[in-house]
Amino acid sequence: MAIQFADRMDGVEDSFIREILKVTENPEIISFAGGLPNPALFPVEQVAVAAEKVIREQGSCVLQYATTEGYLPLREYIANRYQEKSGLEIDPSEILIVNGSQQGIDLVSKILLNKGDKVLIEEPGYLGAIQAISLYQPQFLSASLLNDGIDLQQVERILKNHSIKLMYSVPNFQNPAGITYSREKRTGLANLLKVYGVHLLEDNPYGDLRFSGENLPPIKSTLKELGILLGSFSKVTVPGIRLGWVCADSEIMRKIKVVKQAADLHSNYMAQRILYQYLVDNDLDEHVSKINQAYKKQKECMVACMEQSFPESVTFTRPEGGMFLWGELPERFSTFELFEKAIKKNVAFVPGRAFHLDGKGDNTFRLNFSNSNEELIKKGIACLADVIKEYLAEK
Amino acid sequence: MAIQFADRMDGVEDSFIREILKVTENPEIISFAGGLPNPALFPVEQVAVAAEKVIREQGSCVLQYATTEGYLPLREYIANRYQEKSGLEIDPSEILIVNGSQQGIDLVSKILLNKGDKVLIEEPGYLGAIQAISLYQPQFLSASLLNDGIDLQQVERILKNHSIKLMYSVPNFQNPAGITYSREKRTGLANLLKVYGVHLLEDNPYGDLRFSGENLPPIKSTLKELGILLGSFSKVTVPGIRLGWVCADSEIMRKIKVVKQAADLHSNYMAQRILYQYLVDNDLDEHVSKINQAYKKQKECMVACMEQSFPESVTFTRPEGGMFLWGELPERFSTFELFEKAIKKNVAFVPGRAFHLDGKGDNTFRLNFSNSNEELIKKGIACLADVIKEYLAEK
Repeated sequence: MAIQFADRMDGVEDSFIREILKVTENPEIISFAGGLPNPALFPVEQVAVAAEKVIREQGSCVLQYATTEGYLPLREYIANRYQEKSGLEIDPSEILIVNGSQQGIDLVSKILLNKGDKVLIEEPGYLGAIQAISLYQPQFLSASLLNDGIDLQQVERILKNHSIKLMYSVPNFQNPAGITYSREKRTGLANLLKVYGVHLLEDNPYGDLRFSGENLPPIKSTLKELGILLGSFSKVTVPGIRLGWVCADSEIMRKIKVVKQAADLHSNYMAQRILYQYLVDNDLDEHVSKINQAYKKQKECMVACMEQSFPESVTFTRPEGGMFLWGELPERFSTFELFEKAIKKNVAFVPGRAFHLDGKGDNTFRLNFSNSNEELIKKGIACLADVIKEYLAEK
Repeated sequence: MAIQFADRMDGVEDSFIREILKVTENPEIISFAGGLPNPALFPVEQVAVAAEKVIREQGSCVLQYATTEGYLPLREYIANRYQEKSGLEIDPSEILIVNGSQQGIDLVSKILLNKGDKVLIEEPGYLGAIQAISLYQPQFLSASLLNDGIDLQQVERILKNHSIKLMYSVPNFQNPAGITYSREKRTGLANLLKVYGVHLLEDNPYGDLRFSGENLPPIKSTLKELGILLGSFSKVTVPGIRLGWVCADSEIMRKIKVVKQAADLHSNYMAQRILYQYLVDNDLDEHVSKINQAYKKQKECMVACMEQSFPESVTFTRPEGGMFLWGELPERFSTFELFEKAIKKNVAFVPGRAFHLDGKGDNTFRLNFSNSNEELIKKGIACLADVIKEYLAEK
């Protein structure tokens, strides 16, 4: 007898990117496909020391059930960092610890979205968000990302013509496009959303990974209570501990607490305590600046290699931070076809169509530069350049 | 402007038990209200050793992103334990690691339940499950727990008259009632569910905590592919690491993997590796038997005190394991009223109405014996006995 799954599961399948990542697990392949931070930069010894210290010194209390909101000193640390880095005044009670910002996307969707509600996203957009939000059966609308952030004219047209319930955005070094919203775009978007009373889920996993240019304030600074911020320790400390946070005003936070409790009672408390100990005993800014120096070199190396060896008809972004850059072949070419050829030459990337809702973006691609090194980048990009030239010539 | 939350949030509020637990945080109160394992029995030193070892020896790989399914050797350990303890043949691919079995309840509800689908639960029932399942807007039906498990006549009547989508049960040392299904009840229930093709979500957080009597097989042994098992390390190792699992046949598991990935990518990988190291370096059975010796003493002490000092009109269960026992005052009395009086005398329990769907069970109550010791039990039960006697006399 066929199992009757819930309607929300219709058409939901294994992530396409997951399938691609499986292909690229072959160690002979130079992969720019994944989205992993560079494990060579993980503060392994410091985490080991923090783990020992917390478990030995604090004993059973760090191993017991804990509150749904998360460890208060950790939430205070996050609130202080908002104040320090962007002047945002957040009360620790407006912060709840989740299992990576991915869980924040799920919980916020859960409290806000009815079936058929309209959600505005960026195009290209973060696939993990599309997957999480999809399970609440919304109708997606999208506005294009330009070089300085989302196309505000498109956003305005959409807000005018549709009752949008929620917008999702990654304003810093977006995944997949590597694009960062300019100051003007931030203010402009906030003002538009205010007019229409639309909540913004502002996901910021990469904001600290800035190699150059000026740090820009969260859109929530202008948007105030309509802004829901997501943050993550995955890219600045280690991702395997699955710790991030949601930051929202009290009315929303009260509901998030209810669904978080129903979802898994609370996030891993031992990990929260270990992470907090690490943050107390170490200088996070110093560590982040080490990551940024390394990623900057890797990005510059990748950009230089691409400028040198890619055909001029292939364009790409020069991100000021983050982990990804985004390229485009001339319109009539397909990066799916390119992927098939590249994988045979042992180099991989993600075809950009995966980040579009409607089969668009077939000529685009995403490259990850964080989980690599200069040697592999030189070799991989040279190889990819050959494959691209051959493909453009033969088609 | 009022925020338009999703319909699923209607009437969902902070857990009543949470409110009660807040009252009982006062250190002067002897609380039998909570549901915590006894932290004095946590293997703190062993967890510290495992943490050090895994992080130092395995380094960055235990701190990186990992697969959605969970650490394979941990899933193999769980599969072997099913085989060893109950002869159940489970392939590790049928196991997925989640953030405590609570997350399993959420994910299984997510893949199966449409709004209005009918879910059969036990009465009294586990509140955390009712809360998690409620968010998928089902219609609940319930069948009473008798001393040897659920009332099969009620179950049969319900299955005959309603199209039940899912049943949820805690067949071992149930929370709140402490009741365990007999072998006959297990087979009987499995056969009924088979006839009607109904999936059973079989939650088993307390199964290993058996102090006396014979170990009984999971209902899934008879129910086969209609059975979805939940398991947890919270009660046999430590709860703060939030690790449990879902065990289901491949068709269901494929969908669970999709929603788990959307929910939080994967469970804390560092914690999975630490837990596995702990399990390899230590004898879990030996540790569980230490817990059981302690809980058995605590339960026997509580039962003896209650037999000695409670009025005969107050009845209660004598569980063979787990963490709770369940009592009843004569019908016209209210344990809410009793709670108000008890808290003034610095002793606490949970009024049983919280575990019923429809305001029934007003004369029932739950006592936790795990997170206590004999001295506190003697003192607390003596005090509660006085409050009960006074209350029964005056009403």
